[in-house]
Amino acid sequence: MSKFITFEGCDGCGKTTVLKLVSEELSKRNIDFLLTREPGGSKIAEQIRNIILDKKNIEEDSRTEALLYAASRRQHLTDVVLPALEKGKLVLSDRYIDSSLAYQGYARGIGIKEVMSINAFAINGLMPDVTFFLDLTPEEGLKRIASRSRESDRLDKEKLAFHQKVYEGYKIIIKDDPKRFVIIDAKKTPDEETKEIVDKIMEIIK
Amino acid sequence: MSKFITFEGCDGCGKTTVLKLVSEELSKRNIDFLLTREPGGSKIAEQIRNIILDKKNIEEDSRTEALLYAASRRQHLTDVVLPALEKGKLVLSDRYIDSSLAYQGYARGIGIKEVMSINAFAINGLMPDVTFFLDLTPEEGLKRIASRSRESDRLDKEKLAFHQKVYEGYKIIIKDDPKRFVIIDAKKTPDEETKEIVDKIMEIIK
Repeated sequence: MSKFITFEGCDGCGKTTVLKLVSEELSKRNIDFLLTREPGGSKIAEQIRNIILDKKNIEEDSRTEALLYAASRRQHLTDVVLPALEKGKLVLSDRYIDSSLAYQGYARGIGIKEVMSINAFAINGLMPDVTFFLDLTPEEGLKRIASRSRESDRLDKEKLAFHQKVYEGYKIIIKDDPKRFVIIDAKKTPDEETKEIVDKIMEIIK
Repeated sequence: MSKFITFEGCDGCGKTTVLKLVSEELSKRNIDFLLTREPGGSKIAEQIRNIILDKKNIEEDSRTEALLYAASRRQHLTDVVLPALEKGKLVLSDRYIDSSLAYQGYARGIGIKEVMSINAFAINGLMPDVTFFLDLTPEEGLKRIASRSRESDRLDKEKLAFHQKVYEGYKIIIKDDPKRFVIIDAKKTPDEETKEIVDKIMEIIK
């Protein structure tokens, strides 16, 4: 087995809900998997993440932010993802390198190629085997977020224009590496999406 | 004016002492300068640095460390160095990009080119106008350190073999970009070194 599968999408696309359902399905099938998300319980990765999300750090530069995300990713990789892959587990990660490319590289305007260079350093070759993109427009996504009550962080406060850029960024990244991506229509019900995803995962690990 | 000058060298080479004397000389000559060192009073850069130097973080990966240094450098640059340069000041920095290339790139074995890639992202073109290298062998440097009583951090605990690699790393970096470097023989007295450095600075800013 030992496959590395990531999940991407704009805020509000329903990743968390769907990943919970996918996990339940995989458990029923006795698949040995690990579901994680950065910083994912890595102590140092968490300390790094706290600096990024600290609302007092408003003077943070977008390149500093991108470097901190890359550092947090690296540490999560060495502390959590690699040990699981080495044990032959299937690893599912809620967000990974494409989030940085879309959010920092494209939406914040640093450049996808530039942000790729520091992330290539961080992941040192560990690209996902497959990436599921939960495709939902930012308008739909932000509507869903507004209808929930959840703690906000700095990123949630960004405006619709920013999220539209994130969405555009994802579309560019997918166009550049189409074979790695599986597009899931996130306007479907979570159960429908889960079925599609689990079917694909079973195909990948068989 | 508005020149950016950095100071590099192995641990114990006497940078701190010499930079104090250089500052006194420049003040006497009414030069409008800023002496800084990373994280240099930048609040976020300091938070990042604390993660690197925290002795509890022994499981830290060398690539994570390099990314954190790059992030700290970036933030110090935007918070401290760039504003001073924009005001036309002469900026002197105790360590900068070459320290990462020598320590993380060469001595820790990540690769000078690899560490350069993330630092190129961090500094976004702001290379020093001139870099003074205080040339002292690691044997001499560590002897000097041992003779002082000062608080140790994780990096001071590394062994001589590591510092020899740092020294080798610097030599490679200097060979790759010889025009930028001014080599100062750090076995001379601090007063002699200071005179050489100040003479050169006056030449650069005249």
